[in-house]
Amino acid sequence: MADPVNLIPDRQQFPGLANKTYFNFGGQGILPTVALEAITAMYGYLQENGPFSIAANQYIQQLIAQLRQALGETFNVDPNTITITDNVTTGCDIVLWGIDWQKGDEILLTDCEHPGIIAIVQAIAARFGVTYRFFPVADTLNQGDAAAVLVNHLGPKTRLVILSHLLWNTGQVLPLGEIMAVCRRHQGDYPVRVLVDGAQSAGSLPLDFSRLEVDYYAFTGHKWFAGPAGVGGLYIHGDAKGTANAARLGEINPTYVGWRSITYGSKGEPTGWAEGGKRFEVATSAYPQYAGLLAALQLHQRQGTAEERYQAICQRSELLWQGLNQLPHVHCLATSPPQAGLVSFTIDSPLGHRAIVQKLEEQRIYLRTIADPDCVRACCHYITNEEEIEHLLSRLAEFTP
Amino acid sequence: MADPVNLIPDRQQFPGLANKTYFNFGGQGILPTVALEAITAMYGYLQENGPFSIAANQYIQQLIAQLRQALGETFNVDPNTITITDNVTTGCDIVLWGIDWQKGDEILLTDCEHPGIIAIVQAIAARFGVTYRFFPVADTLNQGDAAAVLVNHLGPKTRLVILSHLLWNTGQVLPLGEIMAVCRRHQGDYPVRVLVDGAQSAGSLPLDFSRLEVDYYAFTGHKWFAGPAGVGGLYIHGDAKGTANAARLGEINPTYVGWRSITYGSKGEPTGWAEGGKRFEVATSAYPQYAGLLAALQLHQRQGTAEERYQAICQRSELLWQGLNQLPHVHCLATSPPQAGLVSFTIDSPLGHRAIVQKLEEQRIYLRTIADPDCVRACCHYITNEEEIEHLLSRLAEFTP
Repeated sequence: MADPVNLIPDRQQFPGLANKTYFNFGGQGILPTVALEAITAMYGYLQENGPFSIAANQYIQQLIAQLRQALGETFNVDPNTITITDNVTTGCDIVLWGIDWQKGDEILLTDCEHPGIIAIVQAIAARFGVTYRFFPVADTLNQGDAAAVLVNHLGPKTRLVILSHLLWNTGQVLPLGEIMAVCRRHQGDYPVRVLVDGAQSAGSLPLDFSRLEVDYYAFTGHKWFAGPAGVGGLYIHGDAKGTANAARLGEINPTYVGWRSITYGSKGEPTGWAEGGKRFEVATSAYPQYAGLLAALQLHQRQGTAEERYQAICQRSELLWQGLNQLPHVHCLATSPPQAGLVSFTIDSPLGHRAIVQKLEEQRIYLRTIADPDCVRACCHYITNEEEIEHLLSRLAEFTP
Repeated sequence: MADPVNLIPDRQQFPGLANKTYFNFGGQGILPTVALEAITAMYGYLQENGPFSIAANQYIQQLIAQLRQALGETFNVDPNTITITDNVTTGCDIVLWGIDWQKGDEILLTDCEHPGIIAIVQAIAARFGVTYRFFPVADTLNQGDAAAVLVNHLGPKTRLVILSHLLWNTGQVLPLGEIMAVCRRHQGDYPVRVLVDGAQSAGSLPLDFSRLEVDYYAFTGHKWFAGPAGVGGLYIHGDAKGTANAARLGEINPTYVGWRSITYGSKGEPTGWAEGGKRFEVATSAYPQYAGLLAALQLHQRQGTAEERYQAICQRSELLWQGLNQLPHVHCLATSPPQAGLVSFTIDSPLGHRAIVQKLEEQRIYLRTIADPDCVRACCHYITNEEEIEHLLSRLAEFTP
């Protein structure tokens, strides 16, 4: 079991916990009061001083800079390497549509990627004559080595590897450092770049992009960071100082662009791309939600370090995993304690997973089904407590075969 | 002068009007109370019943359908021809990146387009070897015919014409019906398609896309519709019944895609594109803001028909235009009454336009400068009243040369 940690979260900050037992943090986090207050306050400010005015525009620019700064600090990188997006998928779109694809280039992706990301790859393949293959990591959940599997799939035309750092279906953490090393060593027609889908990892794993030396890392604010829906981001590897306009950035041509992407001449005409990650930001966005995510990030920092929060998550999910293992009709996919907050399992019951999740929701216990592999997923956050875990276990005990 | 209309707007619904004199509706509208309440209520609902749950997901799907329906009704088209976007620019990105460009194809755009749209065209040109040219319509504000200018610029390789229906700098309404007819008649290598930037027209002009037979019309909710920032849309011409999956839709390949763009198989895998405009919608968005725009649209309908609201806008802007013409040091760009809510003018003053707008903002009077042509822009909405217009005129009278 993970070392006990002293993190005692301020659950009062998460009013959405009060009337239910919530295990869908991997779908969307519970919005903290400070985040909702920040959103409301910004609507108030804008209506008081704008909404379109010199003052309001300066306020928005300052907020964008603050959020970029906070995200840079969260991931230990220069803020200019960060693009603010709507969600994790848009970050993947920016990278995938930004590469100068040549016919015959190859994309490798794991067999556990989200359908939304597979859809992008299929669109790229259709548009540019790029091929794609899956490398199987699902079976490495309990034994085997995902990096070794990847080695056997890398080919001369492999240009991009796509993987989720924390697999959304099985809860496995992929060995990103080893995978990066494997890709850096590969001798093919191209240097192999790695695009990470961080939907489940950002906000749950402690992440240091400078140390990981990852190429592209897309994330969202509304899951483990518990920010509002509609704000996420993308990190693109910077230079040695982590600053903008470095080599990797130059490899990604801006695709969807707009007035936020560019610099201006004296007559208001476009003169070039904005510095760093800003060039992929398009136009008017739901800015009050930026304030919401910023407040959520600051709240997490007050609760504990990223490492402490991660340990607390693991402690809770291990407790759940141990309890599930005591139920004879429940089978956890992982045979060792979860490496993060996602716990996936099957239930022997004539009802089937979908009906069970529906019935639990009627009792105000929230989980979700996963289609492949067919299972149920429960997520523990650092704000999850033992009572909630016991409550879920007692209810699951009732669904006997 | 436009016929007097009986529309008496409920200004109480727009609390942002109370502490200022606001003429920046073309930048961003004043958010009505019903919209902010709808946003807040949805955050409440989601925290009560989710935020990630079967019930919450159904609620969100229903909301998306309602907003699509309301937008379809607003523009007199089938809801499935509508894509919900973040803003007007993203709508233009969807169209521009979706066309199967061939090297040497040509884009024509007016000399009054927004820099964000020019930036997209430049990115397309660089990526696909497409050429672009400007056709000058700025000089047709007071005399001449923009459609005739276009005729002289259409070439054998012209594939797309881009224009703003209501020019953001001079306030001119372009003759869209005539322009569509000119493009339909043109005999070149391609049928010429027309992409309309509706940033200023949607919510101010009464629009009927079925009647206009326009190909692509991008719009935003946060300007003349007074919705929250971060929600807009795109119309793509449907078939005879206006339904989805018709010819024009097939010409636009989805570029940025995600889990909202696709249909699913039994294992959750992508099996194809979602029906109609949904295929260009990517992933998790700021859904409470969708509720805000929906409430704003419903409020406008209660205030008056689109035609009545347009007449009220014209009545107010004509009043402003007449008053400006009485000031010897102020010169309206338009020599006849404004065709919509935008009134652009220059001021003879050693201060310069930027400093004047800054000084007016200090007095809580809100306008903006335009870089090209160098001028000041004041926008009248149907909620603007005579007192506000008189107040602005009296302050402008003080900036003597």
